[in-house]
Amino acid sequence: MASLIDAKDFSPIEDAETIMNACKGFGTNETVLISILANRNAAQRKLVRLAYQEVYHQDLIELLKSELSGNFERAICLWTMDPAEREATLINEALKKATPDYKVIIEIACTKNSEELLAVKRSYQSLYKHSLEEDVASQTIGDIRKLLVAVISTYKYDGEEFDENVAHSEANILHQLIERKAFNDDEMIRILSTRSKKQLSVTFNIFKDLFGTTINKGLLASTTDEYIGALRTIVRCINDPQRYLAKVLCNALNDLVNEDDALNRVIVTRAEKDLKEIKDHFLKRNNISIHDSVDRKTWGNYKTFLLHLLGKE
Amino acid sequence: MASLIDAKDFSPIEDAETIMNACKGFGTNETVLISILANRNAAQRKLVRLAYQEVYHQDLIELLKSELSGNFERAICLWTMDPAEREATLINEALKKATPDYKVIIEIACTKNSEELLAVKRSYQSLYKHSLEEDVASQTIGDIRKLLVAVISTYKYDGEEFDENVAHSEANILHQLIERKAFNDDEMIRILSTRSKKQLSVTFNIFKDLFGTTINKGLLASTTDEYIGALRTIVRCINDPQRYLAKVLCNALNDLVNEDDALNRVIVTRAEKDLKEIKDHFLKRNNISIHDSVDRKTWGNYKTFLLHLLGKE
Repeated sequence: MASLIDAKDFSPIEDAETIMNACKGFGTNETVLISILANRNAAQRKLVRLAYQEVYHQDLIELLKSELSGNFERAICLWTMDPAEREATLINEALKKATPDYKVIIEIACTKNSEELLAVKRSYQSLYKHSLEEDVASQTIGDIRKLLVAVISTYKYDGEEFDENVAHSEANILHQLIERKAFNDDEMIRILSTRSKKQLSVTFNIFKDLFGTTINKGLLASTTDEYIGALRTIVRCINDPQRYLAKVLCNALNDLVNEDDALNRVIVTRAEKDLKEIKDHFLKRNNISIHDSVDRKTWGNYKTFLLHLLGKE
Repeated sequence: MASLIDAKDFSPIEDAETIMNACKGFGTNETVLISILANRNAAQRKLVRLAYQEVYHQDLIELLKSELSGNFERAICLWTMDPAEREATLINEALKKATPDYKVIIEIACTKNSEELLAVKRSYQSLYKHSLEEDVASQTIGDIRKLLVAVISTYKYDGEEFDENVAHSEANILHQLIERKAFNDDEMIRILSTRSKKQLSVTFNIFKDLFGTTINKGLLASTTDEYIGALRTIVRCINDPQRYLAKVLCNALNDLVNEDDALNRVIVTRAEKDLKEIKDHFLKRNNISIHDSVDRKTWGNYKTFLLHLLGKE
């Protein structure tokens, strides 16, 4: 469930004009920007951006970048982008880091359905004139490349049908691989990257029934290298994305200096999707609401904006 | 260019009725079936099939299967299917063989653009409740699996932009790998499976300029195993699909006993696409037109139907 309620009456042209007026002259009225943009859903923001382009011959994102700064600029720009464009941008940025940020790529690939991931791929191509797959493949190496390319490439079956025999057989394969510490075996990658979410969730449950532990605990008991970390992130994103993202938010709020965009990213990308469930997980786990935690640990326009996206407590 | 000219006036309901009448009672009037179906384009055939389902509560494909037999049945059924459904069926059949028919899978994956391949994947999921990727991955093993899964998975960039530096660097990588006979190296698979057709064609040209030979000759000089065969098929399908398909047709017509559906498949799948260019390549190479070759080597309704799809000489 989304954390936001859509605006009922709105005029894209009026919004574009109000935004322009809020940015005119010295200084910027950030409160006005927040009151408009944080209260428009993705389709409405798209219309406002189009209207702004039409009237002022400038991309609204460019205006926001030139007027604002810091975390607030980052958050409101990501929010104003089309969701697929935003996620394509996030992956491209993750790839450009000295060490590509695998977790962001996995988070986006594994918590989306096939049509959403396809939209990200289309947007990526239109922005960068490359396929997402070729950039991930050419900017990574070794086992992590095999895993990431497989995970982002497959156009998965999103239906509810599954095969219990296959799940049984593959739970056993996964268990044997974990026992042998053969984490980079092609079979491990094949199962996690090509099977549907439904099929994998049945496999994970059978694994637990048969072996009395979760796959993730099996992976945890092993080593702590980057590849295993990526495997665990994949399993967690498939198994219970909301719980995983609640944990990402919790880590980000506990270490705001090094959180590296995670707070921004999770709130902005999930506000119109399942932020309500993520908030519930967060509260259950931390005995404090995200709302209160953001309220205590962030400040200024950034805080106001995030609290808006988090919606009512 | 297609080999067929579309029917100008047609009524789906009338067609459905004519088809039903041609199949009524003992015997079937195959000439009528050919005169209708071979003269309707994909969109028109779809409407005829819908009209037939609406009026007679039966799938037109089922009717054709029950009334006809042999190569003619096979060809006209494939032709009547929606193109994406047809290709999904062909891949599924290729996978179900004792030894999966890799060449069919590669032919379909590498001669289509991204949107066409996506349509095949959607159709595959709707027919089999699995993703194409998971079935290819679970029904193949080893190096050939790595290669096939990579080739069918990527949603490639289909645009015209390319990077000459990348092409230069990757032509060198490919050359080194071929020299070292490291054909199953991840880099070989990465380059062939993720780069766009345009980018690869530039890479292939630079390879030729730098090393005085084509990549395919480099691969040919090596061994003759199945994996290398698959690599060569990929390179040929990307490099010049019409020339490759002309060769497939030529092989099929030279060995009709063992041709295993290739004559059918290529004519049916390309008649509305580029059969004209394939015919030109065929004539240039064999000093006989496909038309004459099919005329001499096939017979009956099958021959009549294929000649219809081949169009005017």
